[in-house]
Amino acid sequence: MEGENGENKAEGSIQGYESLHRLLESNLKPELFKEVNRIILGLNCGSPLEHITLPENATSLSSKFNFDIQAFSFKADKEMLREPRVVRVGLIQNSISLPTTAHYADQKKAIMDKIKPMIDAAGASGVNILCLQEAWMMPFAFCTREKKWCEFAEPVDGESTQFLQDLSRKYNMVIVSPILERDLKHGETIWNTAVVIGNHGNIIGIHRKNHIPRVGDFNESTYYMEGNTGHPVFETAYGKIAINICYGRHHPLNWMAFGLNGAEIVFNPSATVGELSEPMWPIEARNAAIANSYYVGSINRVGTETFPNPFTSGDGKPAHMDFGHFYGSSHFSGPDSSCTPSLSRYRDGLLISDLDLNLCRQIKDKWAFRMTARYEMYADLLKRYLESGFEPQVIVDPALGKPEHR
Amino acid sequence: MEGENGENKAEGSIQGYESLHRLLESNLKPELFKEVNRIILGLNCGSPLEHITLPENATSLSSKFNFDIQAFSFKADKEMLREPRVVRVGLIQNSISLPTTAHYADQKKAIMDKIKPMIDAAGASGVNILCLQEAWMMPFAFCTREKKWCEFAEPVDGESTQFLQDLSRKYNMVIVSPILERDLKHGETIWNTAVVIGNHGNIIGIHRKNHIPRVGDFNESTYYMEGNTGHPVFETAYGKIAINICYGRHHPLNWMAFGLNGAEIVFNPSATVGELSEPMWPIEARNAAIANSYYVGSINRVGTETFPNPFTSGDGKPAHMDFGHFYGSSHFSGPDSSCTPSLSRYRDGLLISDLDLNLCRQIKDKWAFRMTARYEMYADLLKRYLESGFEPQVIVDPALGKPEHR
Repeated sequence: MEGENGENKAEGSIQGYESLHRLLESNLKPELFKEVNRIILGLNCGSPLEHITLPENATSLSSKFNFDIQAFSFKADKEMLREPRVVRVGLIQNSISLPTTAHYADQKKAIMDKIKPMIDAAGASGVNILCLQEAWMMPFAFCTREKKWCEFAEPVDGESTQFLQDLSRKYNMVIVSPILERDLKHGETIWNTAVVIGNHGNIIGIHRKNHIPRVGDFNESTYYMEGNTGHPVFETAYGKIAINICYGRHHPLNWMAFGLNGAEIVFNPSATVGELSEPMWPIEARNAAIANSYYVGSINRVGTETFPNPFTSGDGKPAHMDFGHFYGSSHFSGPDSSCTPSLSRYRDGLLISDLDLNLCRQIKDKWAFRMTARYEMYADLLKRYLESGFEPQVIVDPALGKPEHR
Repeated sequence: MEGENGENKAEGSIQGYESLHRLLESNLKPELFKEVNRIILGLNCGSPLEHITLPENATSLSSKFNFDIQAFSFKADKEMLREPRVVRVGLIQNSISLPTTAHYADQKKAIMDKIKPMIDAAGASGVNILCLQEAWMMPFAFCTREKKWCEFAEPVDGESTQFLQDLSRKYNMVIVSPILERDLKHGETIWNTAVVIGNHGNIIGIHRKNHIPRVGDFNESTYYMEGNTGHPVFETAYGKIAINICYGRHHPLNWMAFGLNGAEIVFNPSATVGELSEPMWPIEARNAAIANSYYVGSINRVGTETFPNPFTSGDGKPAHMDFGHFYGSSHFSGPDSSCTPSLSRYRDGLLISDLDLNLCRQIKDKWAFRMTARYEMYADLLKRYLESGFEPQVIVDPALGKPEHR
């Protein structure tokens, strides 16, 4: 998949460029690049993020298996009464490995073989919490509306989870694993689910995607329904985490709910394509981190996935066989509006960041968004909004006359 | 005020640059600048925004009175059953005019004299709806905590409103006028208020700032309380508008509420300084436009305002006499994630955009954020959150043991 666009193009070339951050870095004077980073890219907007040097056994895996690897450190102020709470967090983005026409068992095995060295690199780097991309164990076949892809679904404790439980134990690592779930106890229904595996390999719990898209080729509502697990925060050995799966990132209320339940890091494992969402990608994650005083880890798969049978996209264009380009660009956002550079738009990658969780409360104290939120107004508004007789608060210019004359 | 930093520096120079957009345009190859605009600046992310040519009597005012003037057009698809609903909207940003030590009446008069030709330019350009910056009729003196600045406050139908009512009638223009309000009927209390003046010069209604900051030098909570006017949408001759004043832009629920009440354009008149908020400035406005499927017009004052008496900032630094630099950068955001270039960071300016309001419903139909929002979950969560016995939804890793051992 990746080969078709994934070559490492010369910096400065615009087609197939690795990341906008790198492109700007190589095209702008350092002084101007620094200002761009302060105002729009987020690397120098608070305490500047620092590069972390990773151990050689991690970087050598990146060279050997040809995946992007980058690492940064977010800073918090020193406090008198609390020690720093620095957690090393990793995000993995990847393309699929075999053609979508291959036997499903082989496809799944090939993806596991591909991400295994990336997880090994995370382990070698001392990552505490790792998150994979949405439905990482399959192609994102929901564009096709063919139900045969449901075969990929697994119970929560299925093959993919077992594969990760071993690695979790080996590396003493919490792993968030977003899969297509088959709910055996409820009529074999399908869900889009994140499984949270504790650092001892135990399953802590699950979260099911709350908001399901109906846009472009995102025909996921054909396959599964809105999640029924609320907005759980998982208290792990390394901090309180939550998962806002893919399209949920467009819903500020979904982000808010994880914050109200106490999340300090919220992952957004996604699968999204360029023409549709790329301009929104950094905005929504960074806004959520700012508004809710927590860290966000955003992950998007990479590559172009081609399917065996043609399908249409409801846009009047001819039938075709691919979903468009998944643009990668995984990154971390901080509560102080800082942001790491993104991973490649084309290559597999592992992004690591040291997050001092103390920054969350420091930003709450500084900006006071929670205290000034006036939740009672909104609880009341939403209650009224849901009533069938809801009347919006509209003040009409009397000069407009009566409604029937407008 | 403006003179100290406001000279028109050569493009490419980093200190005192006009706007990041112009700086990048002059420093990047066109092909790369186009991609930067698609992904992060928002000019080419949907239908590219087009420049509007303004009449000569508008541009000549801009030359004569030395203010920035720019104009753009947002596009919507043609529909069969609705005509395009294109509204021409203007935003004015300005520095104050006299030193803050001058007689208050003279200061207010000087600001009016300064913005009069800018409003004339808007009128000459056929602007239908115009919004001024927060507390435009005074210096933003709330950093000082001195109560003498309350003298600037006016009743809703006071001097500033009367000044604008005349212009509103003259140009058949809706004008949103954010002032410091003196509420004569309720004990002469102070509010931070936007007055909405209809195109016949009539006062349609008011909105009072909902969320009051306690951050940095924004000591506004010393002067006025949280607004008591809910989230009104004003149905004017040219469309349904609302006003999210300044710090309210950090609150996604505030943005949401104006959307639920049917706003198609939400103004964000602000006064905010560089070090504190500049990295958040484009993120929050664009996120609100996307999440709520409406247009946002963001306005920030410009210049550095110096006060007669020194004050401290609660940051351990020495007493000083200015608030820092108000960075201007007013801009429009569209529901399709598009964004205009910003006005100057230093100069007064008038930004005009043609907004086809049909785009709002088109984006609602495309992305379905309203329909997929599951408001009932959040109404319930907020209700429970407000109870004193609220327990966050936390799933604890059993391996962590009981709370007293963690």
